[in-house]
Amino acid sequence: MPFDASHLFSNTANRMRRSEIRELLKLTSKPDIISFAGGLPAPDLFPVEEFKEISVKVLTENGAKALQYGPTEGDPGLINQLVEFEKRGGVEVTPDQILVTTASQQGLDLVAKAFITEGDAIIVGLPTYLGGLQAFNSYGAEMHGVQLDEAGMKVDALKAKLAELKNAGRSPKFIYVVPDFQNPSGVTMTKERRLEVLGLAREYNTLLLEDTPYRELRFAGEPVPPFILLDDEERVVTLHTFSKILIPGFRVGWLVTRNKPVMDKLVMGKQPADLCTASFGQMILAEYMSRGLLEKQIGKIREAYKRKRQVILDAFDEYMPKLDGLSWTRPEGGLFLWVRLPEYMNATEMFPKAIDKKVAYVVGTAFHCDGGGANCMRINFSYASTEQIKEGAKRLAKLIAEEAK
Amino acid sequence: MPFDASHLFSNTANRMRRSEIRELLKLTSKPDIISFAGGLPAPDLFPVEEFKEISVKVLTENGAKALQYGPTEGDPGLINQLVEFEKRGGVEVTPDQILVTTASQQGLDLVAKAFITEGDAIIVGLPTYLGGLQAFNSYGAEMHGVQLDEAGMKVDALKAKLAELKNAGRSPKFIYVVPDFQNPSGVTMTKERRLEVLGLAREYNTLLLEDTPYRELRFAGEPVPPFILLDDEERVVTLHTFSKILIPGFRVGWLVTRNKPVMDKLVMGKQPADLCTASFGQMILAEYMSRGLLEKQIGKIREAYKRKRQVILDAFDEYMPKLDGLSWTRPEGGLFLWVRLPEYMNATEMFPKAIDKKVAYVVGTAFHCDGGGANCMRINFSYASTEQIKEGAKRLAKLIAEEAK
Repeated sequence: MPFDASHLFSNTANRMRRSEIRELLKLTSKPDIISFAGGLPAPDLFPVEEFKEISVKVLTENGAKALQYGPTEGDPGLINQLVEFEKRGGVEVTPDQILVTTASQQGLDLVAKAFITEGDAIIVGLPTYLGGLQAFNSYGAEMHGVQLDEAGMKVDALKAKLAELKNAGRSPKFIYVVPDFQNPSGVTMTKERRLEVLGLAREYNTLLLEDTPYRELRFAGEPVPPFILLDDEERVVTLHTFSKILIPGFRVGWLVTRNKPVMDKLVMGKQPADLCTASFGQMILAEYMSRGLLEKQIGKIREAYKRKRQVILDAFDEYMPKLDGLSWTRPEGGLFLWVRLPEYMNATEMFPKAIDKKVAYVVGTAFHCDGGGANCMRINFSYASTEQIKEGAKRLAKLIAEEAK
Repeated sequence: MPFDASHLFSNTANRMRRSEIRELLKLTSKPDIISFAGGLPAPDLFPVEEFKEISVKVLTENGAKALQYGPTEGDPGLINQLVEFEKRGGVEVTPDQILVTTASQQGLDLVAKAFITEGDAIIVGLPTYLGGLQAFNSYGAEMHGVQLDEAGMKVDALKAKLAELKNAGRSPKFIYVVPDFQNPSGVTMTKERRLEVLGLAREYNTLLLEDTPYRELRFAGEPVPPFILLDDEERVVTLHTFSKILIPGFRVGWLVTRNKPVMDKLVMGKQPADLCTASFGQMILAEYMSRGLLEKQIGKIREAYKRKRQVILDAFDEYMPKLDGLSWTRPEGGLFLWVRLPEYMNATEMFPKAIDKKVAYVVGTAFHCDGGGANCMRINFSYASTEQIKEGAKRLAKLIAEEAK
C-alpha cells in the first residue's frame, strides 16, 4: 500500500488547496479561446534579437561568472544598473538597499517570511493581487481586507480596520498596497491617499509593503510619487520586477528598502530559499540596461498597451449592453481593467458559459480575501491581439447580455 | 528617527542570524587565498561554447516561450529529458512525478514548507549539508542529529533516536540523508544501510528525503542504488540539481516523488514562492540534454575531479604531519573530503591563522546541528587548480603541524 503522508504535513501544507482559479486558468489555454485571463505580457514585444546578441556577449566575455553561483544579494553589475534606474524614477538608493529576487513573487514570499508568524494580521486591498494573497496565506496570515474606490484604498475603512484590530489587542504586520494601476482593479492611488495611508502606517507603527510591477507602464495622466519617496523614516519595502516592463522569463525582480535591519532579514530569508537568483539572466539584464535599451523598451510597451487599452475600451463602449450596475475601470496604465457586473450576476457561475463562447477572464473572488467580488471580472488587455480584443469583447458582451434580468 | 521594525519580525526572522560561516566565507574570496571552502564546481569545465550556440537557437526558434512565464511544474521539454535521464539511472518515473525547482536548494525549502511546522522534529546527519540545516531552521525545525560512520548514517544511533522521540510522544517529519559522497563528509551510504534506514522510516512511518547533488560524480567503486529505487511504497522524495553535474548559474534542479499527494503539496508550495523557474535556462538545458551532451559533460567532470582528488590525497599523504587523531576521508566521488583533527584542535579558532597562511576551508561546526564538529574541516577539491591544490595542502599541513601539541 502506498505511504500516506497526510499525518506529516505542516500547517502550511494543510492550508494549501489546489487553487480553483488555476484550474479555471488551465481551461483558458485552449488555442481557440480568446483569453483576457492570465497576466501575460505581449510576447511579440520581447526583444529577442537583442537578447540573442547579448547572451553571446555575456557568455563570451564572462562565461565562467554567468554560469557560476552568484551573491545572494544579486549580481553587482545589475544592482548598479538598478541604482541608476531608481534614480531616474526619483528614488536615491545605495546598492546595499537593493536585493535582487526571483521576480517580485519571491519579494512577496520573503517579506511574508520575515514578518508573518502563523495567525498574524495583515492588511490587504479588496480586491488585491492574487499572488500576494497566496504568498501571505502560505505563511498563515490572517488577512483583513479594506475596500478600494477610484482613488485607491479607502482611508476611513483602513482607519476603522486598524482601530478595530487595536481594540482587539492586535497589530497588523504590514499594509500591502499595489498603488499604481492595481492588479486587478486598474486603480491608481492618489498622492493624498498615499500620504494618509503612510500616516496611518506610522500611527499604528506598522510596515508599508508597496508592490509596483506596473508603475512604469503609465500611458495617461501624471505619475504619482511612490510610497518610498513619500517615506522619511524607512518604513517602506518596495517590490519591482522585470516581468511586465521587459520579460517574465528570466524570473528577475528586485526589492528596495532603506531599513537595514529589515534588509538583513530579507537577505537571510533568501539564502535558504534558493541561495541566489540565476546569474546569466541578471548579467544579460545588466548589459541590456547599460545600453539604455530598457527605457526604450518601456516606451514601446507603453505605446502598445495604450493602443490595446483604447481598443478594449472602445469595444466595451460599443458592444456592452446598457445595464444598471454594469461598469468598468478606465486605467491610466498597466495591464488590467476591472468589470463590475450587476449584483445578481455571478462571474464564477458564468465562467463555463464564457468558455463555451470561447472567451476567458479571471473571476473576481480570486482577488478577495473575504470571499467577495462574485460579480466582478479581471480583464487583461496586454496579451491578446487587437483583433482578438475586439472579438473577445463582443463575446463577453453577449454573455453579459444573456445574463441580464 | 528611522522606523524600528523589530516588534514586527516573524518567529522565522527572529531565528535567523547572519551566518558566521558566510562571514568567514567572504574572507576566502580574496584573490591570493587558495580556497578549499565553498562548494563551487570548476568553471573551466563549463560548456560555454555549446551554451552560446544553444542560447541563440532557443531564442531563434522559441523566443516568445523562452522569455514568457512557464508552468509551475517546469518546462515540459526539460521534464521529458529528465524522465529519460532518470531512466538511464534506473529510475522509472512519469513526467508528473518530476517538479523542476530553482536548484535543489529550493527543493529543500519546498519539502521543509510542506512538512515542518515550527517545533517539529526531523532527523539529520552529524554532519550534514549546511544549506539543508539552514532551510530546515528557517521553518523552525527541531533538528535531531545522528552520527555517521564510513558506511553512512549509523543505524543503531538512528534507531535509538527514533525510539527516544517516540517515547517523548514525538514523531519526526522526515529523515534527511545525502547518501552519495555526502556533503561535507564525502561518505557514501552502503546499500545495506540504505535498506535499514528505509526500514526504520517505514517502522516509524516517516518520510525519507534523499538529496543527491553529486550522485553522478562517482569516480571509484560501484554505484549504490538510490533510496527511490529501494522504496516500494512512495515514501521517498529525491532532490537533484544541475549545479554540480553541469552548472549552478541557471539555478535549475528537480525533485522526484511517486507520492501524488506529496507532489501536490510541493507544487502548491512553489506557486507562491516564485510562480515558476526561469524558462530560458530550462529550455537551454533541454536542448543540451537532447543532444546527449550532459552524459559527456558528466564524464569530463568525473575525470577532472578524480584527478584532483588524487592530487589532494597525494599532497595530504606527503605533507600532513603524522599525528594521532588526524585523518581524512577518501571519497569515491563528489567534491569534498572531510578532515578530522586531533580532539584538542579547534578549526574555527584556527581559521584566522589559515587566512594568514592564504588557505581556506569550511569549519566543521557549520555542518552540525548540535554544535559539534569543532575539530573538523570540510575540504573542497573541485574548484582549485591542481597547482593550487598542492600548494594549499602544503599550507594547511603547516598550519596543522603548528597546532600540534
